Amino acid sequence: MLKRKGLLLVVSGPSGAGKGTICKALLNSNENLKLSVSVTTRKSREGEVEGVNYYFIDNEKFNQLVEADELLEYAHVYGNFYGTPKEKVIENLEKGNDVILEIEMKGAMQVRERYPEGVFIFTLPPSLEELKNRIVGRGTETPEEIHKRLSSAYDEIKLIDNYDYFVINEEVATAVETIENIIKCEKNKVERYRDVILEKFEEEL
Amino acid sequence: MLKRKGLLLVVSGPSGAGKGTICKALLNSNENLKLSVSVTTRKSREGEVEGVNYYFIDNEKFNQLVEADELLEYAHVYGNFYGTPKEKVIENLEKGNDVILEIEMKGAMQVRERYPEGVFIFTLPPSLEELKNRIVGRGTETPEEIHKRLSSAYDEIKLIDNYDYFVINEEVATAVETIENIIKCEKNKVERYRDVILEKFEEEL
Repeated sequence: MLKRKGLLLVVSGPSGAGKGTICKALLNSNENLKLSVSVTTRKSREGEVEGVNYYFIDNEKFNQLVEADELLEYAHVYGNFYGTPKEKVIENLEKGNDVILEIEMKGAMQVRERYPEGVFIFTLPPSLEELKNRIVGRGTETPEEIHKRLSSAYDEIKLIDNYDYFVINEEVATAVETIENIIKCEKNKVERYRDVILEKFEEEL
Repeated sequence: MLKRKGLLLVVSGPSGAGKGTICKALLNSNENLKLSVSVTTRKSREGEVEGVNYYFIDNEKFNQLVEADELLEYAHVYGNFYGTPKEKVIENLEKGNDVILEIEMKGAMQVRERYPEGVFIFTLPPSLEELKNRIVGRGTETPEEIHKRLSSAYDEIKLIDNYDYFVINEEVATAVETIENIIKCEKNKVERYRDVILEKFEEEL
């Protein structure tokens, strides 16, 4: 067996595509896949465990991480900071574990800049119908407003161009299988592992 | 289901990697995978069927195909010409079938020039040991000659850089499975199918 470095999988996509559900199922069935634990300046809530749900840090420490370029991505949400610590991720990858990041699209683009060798996966809803039904069902929007909402959902979908793979979430089990296939497949990419391969054969000369 | 164009899989690799065996097994278990039938100027042998084993054509016709750029690749072997007719391949791809080409490395590079969106797969032997044993077993080569033979095998392996994926042929069944995974995975590539995806959602607006 070749010793191969792990993959950083970045799973993102428009809201409503179900990326959270997919990632949870994926983690449940794949032991070698690790979820990256974020740092946050938010207060810990009851039941949350340090190092499991989050690493809880203060603003000063957070700023230090940002300035030292120690975060793969970060965001400011409702008065608190959230970020993905680079060190832990890299540690896991070096050990040969694959790491998964389930993040918003802006965060995914920050990761792409800092770690372009990641595998960027875009989850999609099977159609816009559900969203349409939900808006129409409320009966509070005019046809123009409905069209505007759908257009902006479509605009989010156009961000697909920033990703390597797409996964249509028709059924969670199928979506999970597709991502498992992507992982296997990326482990046979010449671009990633040509050095490992050539070294292995060179040793035999 | 999205209507997706088929993939052109080009399976190549150094001699002794077992690409022929892998492709045969792959075709047996995948109905939607079509083997490209070559044209040749060689005389047909007993039992060979026109359009199944080869399309048998004369030199004049072959030259016409070359000049009209109708061949994805061609070669001259022991006084005869062999080539891959582009039209049939493209026809199958448009129908949504995947097409497999099992060819020598020089031919693979010609295909890469003419059809860069192909999926280029490099088959590898698990090690150089078998080759080494075979040469040493003959007892006719000096240590320098043995080293020279192994080096030239290694030089062939270095051509891996011209390919997208590598498949180590440790076991045929596993190699076949790996290629099946690659096919599935390529069908979730944004680069290939972003237009199909965006059209599908645009229709819902």
